[in-house]
Amino acid sequence: MNDDRTTRRLEAYARLIVRTGVNLRPGQELIVQARVEHAPLVRLVAEEAYRVGARYVDVAFADAGVRHALVEHGPDDALDWSPPWTVQRIERASEINAAAVGVSGGSDSALFADLDTGRLARARPLAYTRAWISGVLGGHLSWSLVAYPTSDWATEIFGEPDVERLWDAVAHALRLDEDDPAAAWQARADELERRCELLTDRNFDAIRYRGPGTDLEVGLIAGHIWKGGRDRTVTGQVHMANLPTEEVFTSPHRLRAEGTLRASVPFDLRGTIVEGLELRFAGGRIVDVRADHGADAVRADLATDEGASHLGEVALVDGTSRVGQTGVTFRNTLFDENARSHVAWGTGFGFALPDIPEAEHAERGLNASSTHIDFMIGRDELEIDGVEADGTVVPILRGGAWQLTG
Amino acid sequence: MNDDRTTRRLEAYARLIVRTGVNLRPGQELIVQARVEHAPLVRLVAEEAYRVGARYVDVAFADAGVRHALVEHGPDDALDWSPPWTVQRIERASEINAAAVGVSGGSDSALFADLDTGRLARARPLAYTRAWISGVLGGHLSWSLVAYPTSDWATEIFGEPDVERLWDAVAHALRLDEDDPAAAWQARADELERRCELLTDRNFDAIRYRGPGTDLEVGLIAGHIWKGGRDRTVTGQVHMANLPTEEVFTSPHRLRAEGTLRASVPFDLRGTIVEGLELRFAGGRIVDVRADHGADAVRADLATDEGASHLGEVALVDGTSRVGQTGVTFRNTLFDENARSHVAWGTGFGFALPDIPEAEHAERGLNASSTHIDFMIGRDELEIDGVEADGTVVPILRGGAWQLTG
Repeated sequence: MNDDRTTRRLEAYARLIVRTGVNLRPGQELIVQARVEHAPLVRLVAEEAYRVGARYVDVAFADAGVRHALVEHGPDDALDWSPPWTVQRIERASEINAAAVGVSGGSDSALFADLDTGRLARARPLAYTRAWISGVLGGHLSWSLVAYPTSDWATEIFGEPDVERLWDAVAHALRLDEDDPAAAWQARADELERRCELLTDRNFDAIRYRGPGTDLEVGLIAGHIWKGGRDRTVTGQVHMANLPTEEVFTSPHRLRAEGTLRASVPFDLRGTIVEGLELRFAGGRIVDVRADHGADAVRADLATDEGASHLGEVALVDGTSRVGQTGVTFRNTLFDENARSHVAWGTGFGFALPDIPEAEHAERGLNASSTHIDFMIGRDELEIDGVEADGTVVPILRGGAWQLTG
Repeated sequence: MNDDRTTRRLEAYARLIVRTGVNLRPGQELIVQARVEHAPLVRLVAEEAYRVGARYVDVAFADAGVRHALVEHGPDDALDWSPPWTVQRIERASEINAAAVGVSGGSDSALFADLDTGRLARARPLAYTRAWISGVLGGHLSWSLVAYPTSDWATEIFGEPDVERLWDAVAHALRLDEDDPAAAWQARADELERRCELLTDRNFDAIRYRGPGTDLEVGLIAGHIWKGGRDRTVTGQVHMANLPTEEVFTSPHRLRAEGTLRASVPFDLRGTIVEGLELRFAGGRIVDVRADHGADAVRADLATDEGASHLGEVALVDGTSRVGQTGVTFRNTLFDENARSHVAWGTGFGFALPDIPEAEHAERGLNASSTHIDFMIGRDELEIDGVEADGTVVPILRGGAWQLTG
């Protein structure tokens, strides 16, 4: 019976990914990035994609064990190298406006615990990452990030490989327990888009966070908009870049963040679980990094380039989040960032300044970087306000409840 | 205990693959083609490669379920399409003279049994296959084909997922049960190379096969040589293209084969198990195809191009083959072709005519094609003779025993 149930959920998930996530068009190519252990979901995604009319489904499977071998035994200059085909593949997909599914899920932290954290943090294929960021942020790809419940991931969360329990949480977060998950997501996207309109119309000058270990004000850029719910490629293809997605977000001014910020839950940074992270900002820059675990990995990532130690995203999530309702800390950023308000260091989003020419983005304050790392800063315990240009403070979130109305 | 034993065997296998199979050089890149279920071996191969000094280990995992989705639901013109990156990857590897490991193992026949055999046979990426054939036959890659025992593969052979029994057979065939498998393979390669010298020196005009369902004479090309044991790339890197390898082989004249040939064991043709194959040759061309199962798949492959229905390889295997000694029909060509004498339709090997300029190869009778499919024609039951230019018949194999001496 569990097998049947798992199969039905997987099929519903594959349908949601193909038809709502990337919203595949007949004749479009689909690329998939996944791990070898995600093959059961990937097969169903491929089937569903061909049913919809995919011209081709091209899957690149990665394996954490192969990455472990690279980090443990590989030469230094191989750590951040990208095999040229991995870049060519993403560039071509961007050129032809392909759809792109990225699957996460599975814990690296146990596997990678024996590795040097500095080498582990440097083990990221830079050219590939740049091609991917350019493809998704440029609106060239109809993309969707999803996750597949593996036994390793369940163990990471629950201390035992209880995949069924993880599936229950994932299915609720993904609205797969609704009669019509696609319709439920369209309704949720409508709600998120209404919030974006409210926030954009307010044109706040700054966002203020107060909570345990956190007292931060982050300046916003004049002319910014808030995004959430659906995305749209340069060809006008509507898609949902994250499944689940519960956030509304924008890109802040890279030189205007002052104060302290505490991460409210651990998060995975390229294989290192970062715990108890505390950051201090001055002039928009991260000037102090403390953590109970993983500070080296954070510092290594912040050293990626000049923009890495400035903020690229502020995102608001309220208590009606399905992910938050599960009560589970997933130790997977796709899920955890949709349970709690969060920020990201690293690159900002050009689409947050739609009316400002791209050439002026940097001058106006938009951050640019080859990295972009989200981390969670809080839920019910966090008070979040909008600050208007005249100093008026407007509550946005209190005790997890959305305050702003039209 | 079995876990330990499996781990030790896997480690020994990975060592053999890296140090004897591709004979990896420090600073060389290694590419690996494998299936998702081969990850446990691939991880150890990557580790061993980095220990030897690999500059990078680049793994491309395929999944039979994704291929199933393509064949079942994909558009016609996608069946033989190659994503450009798959071609670019092999071309670059050839340019830089990388090492290349290909892992097979795992039965497709149960998974693919519900598919249209015509579509299944056409589902092969042509441009990728051409790039691969060009890389390996041109001597640009230090390559080695190996296999990994999976439970699906064990079920295909034994009717139950007895991986331990399969491992026993594989380990014997691979000489992993020797104290020094690498030394055992060097000794075996020496023997095979001595046989090649004997055969090359004899300069036979033809090879004659007689056995149940088989009565065939295949002409050889003046100036041919026999190959076996070790290979050598254009840069002089010595490697073993197959592990296990028990054959000595050459490429025959494409227009000189007359008679009938019966395959002695079933074989996998791109996912279709071909059983009871009988071919009739006239003027070197396959003019009649019969089979108990899979004839459509054979006909589809023979229709690849003009050269597909002519022979590209004749290979001799005697009873001292470790693979043959296991008594197992592996239903995997890498193993089964090294237990029995075999032939292949499709492309011939330029290296079989080392003293003849490449421009003259076609005129001299060497076959060319985008396909190359080996199948087994017999062991102890097959009498194989060399025929000299004056008609003298010289026994080569009788009852599985090697007859030719210096």
